[in-house]
Order: sequence, then structure tokens, then C-alpha cells
Amino acid sequence: MTATTGTTTVSAYAAPSAKAPLERTTVPRRPVGASDVLIDIKYAGICHSDIHQARDGWGEGIFPMVPGHEIAGVVTEVGPAVTRFAVGDRVGVGCMVDSCRECVNCEAGLEQYCLEGNVGTYNALDRNGEPTYGGYSTHIVVDEAFTVRIPDGLALDVAAPLLCAGITTYSPLAHWNAGPGKKVAVVGLGGLGHMAVKIAHAMGAEVTVLSQSLRKKDDGLKLGADHYYATSDESTFEQLRASFDLIVSTVSAPLPLDKYLGLLRTDGAMVNVGAPEEPVSLNLFSVIAGRKTLAGSGIGGIQETQEMLDFCAEHGLGAEIELIDADRINEAYERVLASDVRYRFVIDASTI
Amino acid sequence: MTATTGTTTVSAYAAPSAKAPLERTTVPRRPVGASDVLIDIKYAGICHSDIHQARDGWGEGIFPMVPGHEIAGVVTEVGPAVTRFAVGDRVGVGCMVDSCRECVNCEAGLEQYCLEGNVGTYNALDRNGEPTYGGYSTHIVVDEAFTVRIPDGLALDVAAPLLCAGITTYSPLAHWNAGPGKKVAVVGLGGLGHMAVKIAHAMGAEVTVLSQSLRKKDDGLKLGADHYYATSDESTFEQLRASFDLIVSTVSAPLPLDKYLGLLRTDGAMVNVGAPEEPVSLNLFSVIAGRKTLAGSGIGGIQETQEMLDFCAEHGLGAEIELIDADRINEAYERVLASDVRYRFVIDASTI
Repeated sequence: MTATTGTTTVSAYAAPSAKAPLERTTVPRRPVGASDVLIDIKYAGICHSDIHQARDGWGEGIFPMVPGHEIAGVVTEVGPAVTRFAVGDRVGVGCMVDSCRECVNCEAGLEQYCLEGNVGTYNALDRNGEPTYGGYSTHIVVDEAFTVRIPDGLALDVAAPLLCAGITTYSPLAHWNAGPGKKVAVVGLGGLGHMAVKIAHAMGAEVTVLSQSLRKKDDGLKLGADHYYATSDESTFEQLRASFDLIVSTVSAPLPLDKYLGLLRTDGAMVNVGAPEEPVSLNLFSVIAGRKTLAGSGIGGIQETQEMLDFCAEHGLGAEIELIDADRINEAYERVLASDVRYRFVIDASTI
Repeated sequence: MTATTGTTTVSAYAAPSAKAPLERTTVPRRPVGASDVLIDIKYAGICHSDIHQARDGWGEGIFPMVPGHEIAGVVTEVGPAVTRFAVGDRVGVGCMVDSCRECVNCEAGLEQYCLEGNVGTYNALDRNGEPTYGGYSTHIVVDEAFTVRIPDGLALDVAAPLLCAGITTYSPLAHWNAGPGKKVAVVGLGGLGHMAVKIAHAMGAEVTVLSQSLRKKDDGLKLGADHYYATSDESTFEQLRASFDLIVSTVSAPLPLDKYLGLLRTDGAMVNVGAPEEPVSLNLFSVIAGRKTLAGSGIGGIQETQEMLDFCAEHGLGAEIELIDADRINEAYERVLASDVRYRFVIDASTI
């Protein structure tokens, strides 16, 4: 970390261009502003969407790109106006680093749905028009309003993935009232799915995993699932017909939605936190019969992210991780694409 | 009406076979059972779904078929166990004449979502396996549990369409909390849509009609809409972006759902009460961005139907109708298919 006038230069791993492997480089970090904290990054999770973006799957990527929006670290400097954090605090940063802070959604703590669009932690332009760089880096400067506290009970390495995988699943589970007496299905047992199982179980719901095969069944039950079914087995859809109050789909494959909606009880909801890039097909009678809901949910607000971290600390929930050195990021990407990770790669930022 | 042993023979209009025009005939009505009422039908509305079924659009039609599930009449006989109705009472019958009455949905007053399937007023088999015949007839025998009271303030002719078009729109408007401070869009200004506008307005919501053209704009505003836009005008989707808390779609044409979902505010819901027979296409990001709901709703429960009739009487709401003699049913079908009715044909049952 070297400081020049104003900006600081820090080490990072970046994709120099779309589809190129990530490599070690340096990127600028802005000076610590009045309401900013400088964070010494300790760990950064690898989210499936990092790969999408680094490979420009969604188009309009900004290169060089430093991915990473599951950041856990320690505050090493605070701006003069910072009130909520002090040097030495254990903190996290998720998918957003800013928003308009004035619209009705921001006012309601729904910064993820900011009407002007929030500022992504990477692959975005901040409100001054400068590109943002994410967590595959040694340091980051973030406004305290977009920084959350990692409770003492949570180790930083297993806390990092909570900043995306945790909040993305906690938010719909809380919003659609997962809890005692509710039957919740989680589709897909990957990075998001395994957190959905842990959180829904801790909320008191009866949890069923719907996975392509029974390959991870033992894991699923250990994570807190009460039941585990293979969706490759057609009889699953007959057996579980009209069973669930809530289905949280964490997969980005295009699912046969009508079949899944058939698994819901009257007034049940299927909430998608993963989504395929291509459109899906749906017969509207699948929602008319039984007044069902097909919905979506994107990450969560900042206050809700803090609530999620506090909930996870209280229930002893961290992600299941495989800790890697930074020089294994490209290999990890290939393994994520092959669904060969249980359940989240986390980069040890001291190796960046 | 002639009685033989047990059953009674009554006049009716029926489709003798799929796609054949309707013609005058007679059908049997069961003896008045202990909990039954015999209703002298005064008026029967023509619902778009009558045409679908009479022409076997959904397959598996039971012929001869007497359509009609928007029935208003007067009780002329009651079984010995009937407690809620007396001879001379003004009553209505909607889309269902029975259900299992024991499942969790029936117990909750959601007979429309009976887990064993409710018994349709026509084109269905009753729980004894006998075909049911609908409202295009002079008389019908119905269990009092599936009979509702038409309040004195409502004329029977304008009340008849409430039994389907009224409840089908009232139920989602009530369930998704249309009311003061809420912006509600109604897609399509036909039989269902015109009741949705009246009811949403009476509930206190700010109501916008989204219709293909501005052809019926004057009507829409008179019915209670505050705004009226043409969906054939692309700028409508820009102008109204992120405007509505609730969209009720009454059309059975396949809509470009992503565009309509873009009209919802964060946490908004688009509820379909009409649906095309073919699947529709949807990009799931349209619901993820803004935590939106795509839902459906089918008619309403019996108690809710009574609540709707009481609400309509209190607010002076009846359907806008064109009263016809029974010999014009086939002509009326053609006009419904051509969207040439403002807004519901009602058959004068004295002409059957």
C-alpha cells in the first residue's frame, strides 16, 4: 500500500479484460473522506456472479475489474466525521458501497433497490464517476454508511460470504416469514443454498433441500435440512405436491417453473434469488390456481445486513468455506463453474 | 318446469356439442335436498369463459353443456335443513356449487382452492358424479352453503355479473390491500376490468386503466378511473415506470410481462385473473429488481363473495350490462369475442 497525493495504490487481483484470467496488479483507492473508513481486508469470498462479471457475461464490464463483494476485514483508519466505527473494529462490506440515500427506498433501508441504482462494490462507477474495485485486494475505502459490523462471535473467514450469500438468502426468508410452522424448500445447495438451509433452520422452519441429485444429501442434513430430495427424480414433484409455504430458488439454471409452483401450498411463494440470463416460460394458471406468488429478491439493505450478521452470530452460523491463496483464484473459478466447492471459496487476502 | 319422480325438468340453453351453437333444450335438476334451495333464475351473465368452455377451448367439456355462473334469482323452495334462506329471498350463485368442505382451504373459506377441487356450477361432475348445468336456465337447485344473498340495494340484473366478474376482481384487490394511498392499475377494460375499476375506486385507490387503445377512455373515467393509458403507445411504459403498487391483469392475451413488471414499484404485485392458454415468457430479473411479485388469483370464497356483494351494495356498484333475450346468446358470444360489449351481456331468464 503506497500513498501518493490523494489516492493510495493497493495490491489486487484483477481481470485485465473480459475472459482473461485474473492476475496480480495494483489499483487506486480514494483518500479516506470525512465519513469513510479504510479497511484492511482479511478475507474475500468468491461469488458465482464474480465469474459472470469478470467474464463479461452480463455485458458492459469495466476493465480492469477487481471482483469481490464478500469482504471481511479490520478498520485501520477513520475519517473525521465517522461516528460508528473505530480503528480495530471488525467490519464487512457487501455488494453495495453507495446509493442516492434520498429516495423512498433508501429512506426505507432498501438501498439495494435505490431508485437511482446503488453503486456496486466493483464493476460500477461511483457517484464521482470513478470505477469501483472490489474485495480481491488488500485494502478498500468505504463510506461508513455502507460498512457493517462483524460481531465478535463470528470468525472473519466464515463471515465474509455472509455479505452476499448470507444476506441474499436471509432477506427473502425474513420477508416471507420463514419460521416455526413453515415449510421451506431451498432449491440448489451451493454457496447461496447452503446458507439458506442454515438460516431457515435457525429461524425455526422445516427445511427441505431440492437438489439435482442426492450427491450432497449428507451435507444438507448436517447443515440443518430436515429433508432432501432429488429433482432429477420425477416422483419428487408428485410426492411433494402442494407442500411448501416458501420456495427459495438459488439456482441460475432455467427451472421448469410450473412444476416448482405445483409444490407450493395455497398462498405460497416461490422466490428467486438466482436467475438465468435467458427468459423462462410460465403458464399463468400455475399461479392462479392457489393464489401463488412468483417473486424475486436481490441482496438486502444495509440495516438488514447488520441484522443478518447479528442473527448469524447469535446462532453460530458461518459459511462452509475452502480457504485459498490468491494465486488459486483462476483455478477456483473453474471449480465453481463445475459446482466443485463445498460451499464457498474464500481468498486469504494476506496472499494478495 | 315439470317434476317427475325426484328430478325436475327445466328449460335451458345448451351447447349440444363442442363448437355447435347454443339452442333451447331441457335439463334435469335434482330434487331439493335437505340443505338445498330451489332458485327461480331471473338473470344470468355471459362470461368470456362460458364461450371457451362451450367451444371446448380447454378440452374435456361435458356436453350437452348449459353455461352460466353469474346467476341472480329468487328462492322458491327450501329444504328442511336450510337455515339461512327463505322463500322469496334474493340470491346469487357464482362459479362453484360445492367443494369437499373439509380441507384446510375449505375450512379457511377458500373453497375456490379446495384441495379436492371445487364443483363448478356447470361443465363439472357433482359429488354424486352427475353433470352440473349452469345459469342459462329457468331454475337451479343449489346447496345453501354455496348460495349468497343479494342485498336489497342491488338490482338483480346488474348484480348477476358480480358473481364472477365482481368477485374475481374484488378478491385480489382486497387480498393485496387496494385502498387509500395505493396506486392500482387495471389491465383491460372488459367484463372483469370494468368491475375492477369500480371496486378499486370504491376501495379508495388511485386507479389507472391500461387498455390497448384509448377507445373506451371516456367510459373508464366515468367508471371511476383517475387515469387512462393506451398500451399500444410505447411511451406509456416509460411514463408509468415504477408507478404502481398493484396491477390487476384481466386479459387473457399473452402480455409482455417484463414490461408490465417494470411499471411496479418496489414490493409491488402484478396479479393475473385472466390468463392465456399458452405459456408466457418472463425474465426473472424483472421480479428480482425491486422484490416484485407475479401472482394469480381465482374467483373468491363463498364468505368473501357475500362480503363483495355487501360492499357493492353499500357503494352502489353494479355491472354495466346489456340485457338480452336468450335467443340472442349466440350473437352475444360473437360480440364478446369481438370485444363488442359494454361491459357484460346478461340474459333475461324469463325468455329461456
